Amino acid sequence: MLLTQIIKTIKNGQSGYINSHFDNDIDITNAASIEFASKSQITFLEENNYLKEKINTTKASAIILFNDKELLLICKQRNISTIVVQKPKIAFSELLNDFEKKITPEFGIDTSAKIGSNSNIGDRCYVGPNVIIGKNTSIGKNNFIHAGTVIFDNVEIGDNNVIYPNCVIFQNTKIRDNCVVNSNTVVGSEGFGFIPKDGKWLKVPQTGGVILNNSVEIGTNCCIDRPAVGHTIIGEGTKIDNLVQIGHGVKIGSNCAFAAQVGIAGGAMIGDGVILAGQVGVNNRVKVGNKVIASSKCGIHADVKDGEIISGFPAIPNKLWLRSSAIFKKLPDLAKKLRQLDKK
Amino acid sequence: MLLTQIIKTIKNGQSGYINSHFDNDIDITNAASIEFASKSQITFLEENNYLKEKINTTKASAIILFNDKELLLICKQRNISTIVVQKPKIAFSELLNDFEKKITPEFGIDTSAKIGSNSNIGDRCYVGPNVIIGKNTSIGKNNFIHAGTVIFDNVEIGDNNVIYPNCVIFQNTKIRDNCVVNSNTVVGSEGFGFIPKDGKWLKVPQTGGVILNNSVEIGTNCCIDRPAVGHTIIGEGTKIDNLVQIGHGVKIGSNCAFAAQVGIAGGAMIGDGVILAGQVGVNNRVKVGNKVIASSKCGIHADVKDGEIISGFPAIPNKLWLRSSAIFKKLPDLAKKLRQLDKK
Amino acid sequence: MLLTQIIKTIKNGQSGYINSHFDNDIDITNAASIEFASKSQITFLEENNYLKEKINTTKASAIILFNDKELLLICKQRNISTIVVQKPKIAFSELLNDFEKKITPEFGIDTSAKIGSNSNIGDRCYVGPNVIIGKNTSIGKNNFIHAGTVIFDNVEIGDNNVIYPNCVIFQNTKIRDNCVVNSNTVVGSEGFGFIPKDGKWLKVPQTGGVILNNSVEIGTNCCIDRPAVGHTIIGEGTKIDNLVQIGHGVKIGSNCAFAAQVGIAGGAMIGDGVILAGQVGVNNRVKVGNKVIASSKCGIHADVKDGEIISGFPAIPNKLWLRSSAIFKKLPDLAKKLRQLDKK
Repeated sequence: MLLTQIIKTIKNGQSGYINSHFDNDIDITNAASIEFASKSQITFLEENNYLKEKINTTKASAIILFNDKELLLICKQRNISTIVVQKPKIAFSELLNDFEKKITPEFGIDTSAKIGSNSNIGDRCYVGPNVIIGKNTSIGKNNFIHAGTVIFDNVEIGDNNVIYPNCVIFQNTKIRDNCVVNSNTVVGSEGFGFIPKDGKWLKVPQTGGVILNNSVEIGTNCCIDRPAVGHTIIGEGTKIDNLVQIGHGVKIGSNCAFAAQVGIAGGAMIGDGVILAGQVGVNNRVKVGNKVIASSKCGIHADVKDGEIISGFPAIPNKLWLRSSAIFKKLPDLAKKLRQLDKK
Repeated sequence: MLLTQIIKTIKNGQSGYINSHFDNDIDITNAASIEFASKSQITFLEENNYLKEKINTTKASAIILFNDKELLLICKQRNISTIVVQKPKIAFSELLNDFEKKITPEFGIDTSAKIGSNSNIGDRCYVGPNVIIGKNTSIGKNNFIHAGTVIFDNVEIGDNNVIYPNCVIFQNTKIRDNCVVNSNTVVGSEGFGFIPKDGKWLKVPQTGGVILNNSVEIGTNCCIDRPAVGHTIIGEGTKIDNLVQIGHGVKIGSNCAFAAQVGIAGGAMIGDGVILAGQVGVNNRVKVGNKVIASSKCGIHADVKDGEIISGFPAIPNKLWLRSSAIFKKLPDLAKKLRQLDKK
Repeated sequence: MLLTQIIKTIKNGQSGYINSHFDNDIDITNAASIEFASKSQITFLEENNYLKEKINTTKASAIILFNDKELLLICKQRNISTIVVQKPKIAFSELLNDFEKKITPEFGIDTSAKIGSNSNIGDRCYVGPNVIIGKNTSIGKNNFIHAGTVIFDNVEIGDNNVIYPNCVIFQNTKIRDNCVVNSNTVVGSEGFGFIPKDGKWLKVPQTGGVILNNSVEIGTNCCIDRPAVGHTIIGEGTKIDNLVQIGHGVKIGSNCAFAAQVGIAGGAMIGDGVILAGQVGVNNRVKVGNKVIASSKCGIHADVKDGEIISGFPAIPNKLWLRSSAIFKKLPDLAKKLRQLDKK
């Protein structure tokens, strides 16, 4: 792709184009990270990026940069073409869409797919090999349902969704529009509902369903359980990484991001814009406010107010946790000092 | 369903029926939680339930209640029919069985299923599309084996089991009766057995098998590994949630309950009635006594005696952990105080 | 198998044969652990093994032992045949290869498998039922690709690999030789790449790929993500247990071993010979040196030097963590003592 064409794409994008500097309209073959870029490739550098020094060694022919005179000067000296924008990562991401060789299967229903009675599939859908769809299930248009996925009865799927191979979507699930469900993820499996009775466990039927609102994305090998009654709900625009457990009856707000191996126990309520880092756990029925950020491995055992940044287990304010953790490793010294004082 | 019919069901159940109060034999359309119930629906309230105040606002037409004069009075004033029992959640659970629109496929073996030589399938089984069953495998009666599940050679499956879609059951697995294996779970995969030698890892063949005793239930995306020799065993009535790892050679007693993302390393021995909360880890070869309760994220690194309640990592008695955790967040103050005393 | 034949196998193996003691050339029917071995079976005992006392009660007819006069005497008295080697577990492991009834399907491509245009499959491969292989994918010789596995376009698979049922291998994945991918594992799924913008998440296309070098083994239900650009790489001989998350762009060295439920966030760099115990987490972009050992549940938030043994969260040297943890449970006492001193 010619550099001038790339600049045009970026101007039309959302990254906040400022200007560009180049001698020749070179042909850019691909995009790469600043460390691994080779000649004829384009890369990018964010403000505050830990790879800043790599500007002196990168082999990239072009770079998308934030507005920094010093770095621009280096690029000029090293003969690297520059495109200056407010948000370089966004510009780079937009370019990747163009460079990516998309692997999109052709529309149509594979002959090995099975579709139950009274189920509808909209226009321009791909239904891959060995896909099984139950009865009374409605699937909108422009959906990609990949090989080996099993969809039960009474499921509603809107438009423009992608469900990757070997997923299972249980009855009473509603997937709105523009969602992605990655491979081997299970949506709508029965919640873990058992009542102790006489030393045994009595099973509670899980008659509810799961709702994935618009633009929800779920990673691979995740579990989104359905509750005894009502719905497990994931809000619009929320993104969930791999191996995440969402318990029965959990309600999650919009535009949250949960990293891998997060576990949310049954009945928890998560606000909007919440960020949970890797391996965070949330206890059952806990309420987590809007825009809360929990650092990795945090255990949220009680309600959290809007906007808090929390860490540790039990979760405490992040700043306090950092200070307490710093002292934790000095505990042997502290204990020794205390013994000495005590003797005096 | 008429209220009188519901009362009849509850009288015949295990919840301990006491009495009921209503003016008319209304038609109940469905069951719901107290917060989300609407007119013509039935709900329930447990003793000590945090939703108690919702009795003043619920729109439910009927409620299953424990014996509480005050609450009964409110229901009378608000014209809510009441059924009083000793264990409301059990009564509610029994009702759900009636309200649930069960999605049970018809018996029979799908034409796309493949069954190996010398394998038997009992009466009244459902074997779904694309199910693959190996050789010398015996499957009893009343089993539901859902689409895409793969069962290897030399597997024994008893009666009345449900195996959901896309599971894998490896050779030498025995599943007794009345078990449930949820979607995408793997039973009998090779244990993680490697011996360090000259800086590399030598693989130990895993020739053993897995036994799931009666009424075991396993969640979605779980892994139950087989050992080098002998068996990994899960005891009768034990219930396991999603994304749980059971290492090779682990022995688990009866009627345990493990929450999501629990991991039990190879060779650990777990007693009867043990409860492990979410994300708990158990070290290899550790012995956990009967009726032990471990709170979430607990790391069990050493043997635990019968009946203990433990928390934290390394695991300590729960009460001690609560007190130590409360002081953990005061460590900066403690350290400051100690410095002040030291100066004096 | 006759005892003399077993001795011959061990002599030809890598365990360091020393000598053997027996009266008769008995027939050994199988191998078992020292606790569960019955008559006519062979077992083993490692130095420092916690099961040492079982030598007095085992029913095994033969045992592979390290060189210990006392134990040899007991075996003689109890009429147990002994084979003495330097590394008993290795000898035992080698025997298991002989005792194991291997379940290897016959070569050939199942009629229900689908293979895309311009894809090649080498000699002596097994391609199981319902396997789906995309376009431009190259598969070498002696590969076992089990039922229900889905392989996308542009994948390269070398020789002698085993991919168990219901895996998904995405585009641009390279699997070299002698690898094992266990059931329901996903290799090459899209990395979790989102940029915050105006309160929403902008998706970054993940155009990269995954490389599994020679002799890599991956457990069940794992996720190995591909990055935006470049590759996620797992080094030769590295072994990974179940339910492990490897984020986009992670580079892992050779001969590492990661236990179950480990999570490695995007861009982390792991050295050679690194051992991560169960449920360990590694933050994004962290560099972990060669031969680092992290104990279970450790949270690695910052770079770690070669050879360190670390524990806890945030990770600190293991010895310090053990001492600090021992004091953690005495914090209530310490705080009390401090209050008393303060009053004086």
